[in-house]
Amino acid sequence: MVKRIFNFNPGPAALPLPVLEQIKEEFLDYKGTGMSITEISHRSKQFEESLNQAVERTKRLLKIGDDFHVVFIQGGATLQFCMVPMNLAVQGKPIDYINTGTWSTNAIKEAKLLGKDVRVIATSEDKNFSYIPKEYQVTGDASYLHFTSNNTIKGTQWAEFPKASGVPLVSDMSSDFLSRSFDAKPFGLIYAGAQKNIGPSGSALVVIRKDMIERVPANLPTMLRYTTFTANNSLYNTPACFVIYVISLVLKWLEETIGGLDKMERINQEKAKLLYDFIDRSNFYRGTAAKDSRSLMNVTFRLPTEELEAKFVSEASKASMGGLKGHRSVGGCRASIYNAVGIEALKSLVEFMADFQRKNG
Amino acid sequence: MVKRIFNFNPGPAALPLPVLEQIKEEFLDYKGTGMSITEISHRSKQFEESLNQAVERTKRLLKIGDDFHVVFIQGGATLQFCMVPMNLAVQGKPIDYINTGTWSTNAIKEAKLLGKDVRVIATSEDKNFSYIPKEYQVTGDASYLHFTSNNTIKGTQWAEFPKASGVPLVSDMSSDFLSRSFDAKPFGLIYAGAQKNIGPSGSALVVIRKDMIERVPANLPTMLRYTTFTANNSLYNTPACFVIYVISLVLKWLEETIGGLDKMERINQEKAKLLYDFIDRSNFYRGTAAKDSRSLMNVTFRLPTEELEAKFVSEASKASMGGLKGHRSVGGCRASIYNAVGIEALKSLVEFMADFQRKNG
Repeated sequence: MVKRIFNFNPGPAALPLPVLEQIKEEFLDYKGTGMSITEISHRSKQFEESLNQAVERTKRLLKIGDDFHVVFIQGGATLQFCMVPMNLAVQGKPIDYINTGTWSTNAIKEAKLLGKDVRVIATSEDKNFSYIPKEYQVTGDASYLHFTSNNTIKGTQWAEFPKASGVPLVSDMSSDFLSRSFDAKPFGLIYAGAQKNIGPSGSALVVIRKDMIERVPANLPTMLRYTTFTANNSLYNTPACFVIYVISLVLKWLEETIGGLDKMERINQEKAKLLYDFIDRSNFYRGTAAKDSRSLMNVTFRLPTEELEAKFVSEASKASMGGLKGHRSVGGCRASIYNAVGIEALKSLVEFMADFQRKNG
Repeated sequence: MVKRIFNFNPGPAALPLPVLEQIKEEFLDYKGTGMSITEISHRSKQFEESLNQAVERTKRLLKIGDDFHVVFIQGGATLQFCMVPMNLAVQGKPIDYINTGTWSTNAIKEAKLLGKDVRVIATSEDKNFSYIPKEYQVTGDASYLHFTSNNTIKGTQWAEFPKASGVPLVSDMSSDFLSRSFDAKPFGLIYAGAQKNIGPSGSALVVIRKDMIERVPANLPTMLRYTTFTANNSLYNTPACFVIYVISLVLKWLEETIGGLDKMERINQEKAKLLYDFIDRSNFYRGTAAKDSRSLMNVTFRLPTEELEAKFVSEASKASMGGLKGHRSVGGCRASIYNAVGIEALKSLVEFMADFQRKNG
């Protein structure tokens, strides 16, 4: 019997067990090829089928058509911090950013490093990024408006996306991509590192609206131009084949086992509610994010002392619950409850938390 | 019983079967964590151990010490085509390139796109890149001298590396890295896409001599600066964890099962000799590379007609030998016989080739 724990890792994170079991099952002989998925050509029909499945399922889940490209680019969301402004900044039109924490801050830094005209139209830095800004003005002259849809470190999330009347939205959705339904049409570009909700680390998934492609400067290095990926179905050079294969399986699970984004969203709401409700009833645990800005993906909380927090993480680990330590930059505790973390993991966690409080409260 | 074929794919390519079996075996529970290797944190001690093993084994195999960094960068060798000149070109000093085929040509193109001062000091384009140039002049004023150590498409390989007295060598070793011993000291930088000799696709391994690091301009985007990787042991952001894990296992196999690079080289020579000797004795098969420039990794050959070539590839496939089609840009046939392709695969191939010749010659 294989030992499995409840995995609350912030990323790389839990993957659906049936997906892992399928990977294991077909690992030495992929679909009768007599080769592992790690040994077949990226130009083989078996791999292209996997890639095309990943693209088509993403489009179906997001309800987008041929007016969008879906491509896979290595380097994580962090490479996108520079690729987006390199490709989409329009001469004479500033880039608007809303700063909600570490990842937004890093994205802004990269645009500035490229010498782009950056305008931070809102920030929640005044309260240590514990909330999502409500007051900001979007003017029509921006190249695009960039925001981070979910903030893994501070545990905040945009419940409703900014309205940017005519200005294309660009979002780093690394940590909540495909965790809920939303209208993709106002988005010029969406990017997400795979390692939270959709796969292992090693690739970003990028959704690009076709009109954005016209902005791409021809003189960028080949691998930094979105057109290299859109014109070649992500196969200009060898992509991260194993990652894309796993993504295709995770999206199959999301469509066929879960039943799509509306159902996934309801499950994610139910999971988060279980934990937030428990925290709110407790006088021992304390949530760190403003209530109206709470993330359904990363639940951040503190205990009365740092010593208790360390003890909590350590005892949780012994009770087969992993990944509960807060980000090294902020401390505290965090339960990352992405798509693949089931309701039973939440029930088990809440039970453990109640027990820990009884013994240490 | 799992079906396995003899895999002559050019990349992604064959991996050692014991490595694949170990991955499968520990896929649902990595080292007692209760999580898959695809689900654990890149900052966990289990993953860092794997990463450090990959680094240390590379250094031991290459007999290099702390005067070199070994880092993992996503984007394949193709991203390195632009990263190398971005990082290592010195103002006022041209970059020397030797052009031996498609990959060198692409590398040159990227340096030119960046506006760098490129000097092609030798090329074998006059004979369709079928040989490695012998006549060229390296002058001391170059930033570095770039060459492609093995050419997968044309089936040529540098038997001895260029002498560049004082000018740092830079080499794309994607398709023969760790297939033989060589003196790494004259190299300022070596890069290799993982998907030939050392792992699955999704990461390049980059070896950088420490004095090169001083050249890196501070104003490059973070993810395009070598210093981001060297200063953070490849962990500035989430790396391609699964790929690095597999690389660490392949290098363990190379060190402990094969016994190091000298032994690997002898095996690779023996494998290639078996096939080249057979081709040379045949009046049916014809090698395409100049004899003194032949690759020990990619054996390119033609049959009397294209029809016979198509039949050969198709019948080989039925006889459980895959990946024998030549690159789409040149046609013909090609057997890629990287480290993980055993001598028994070569014996089987030669036997099949003899049989095919008897029936179709």
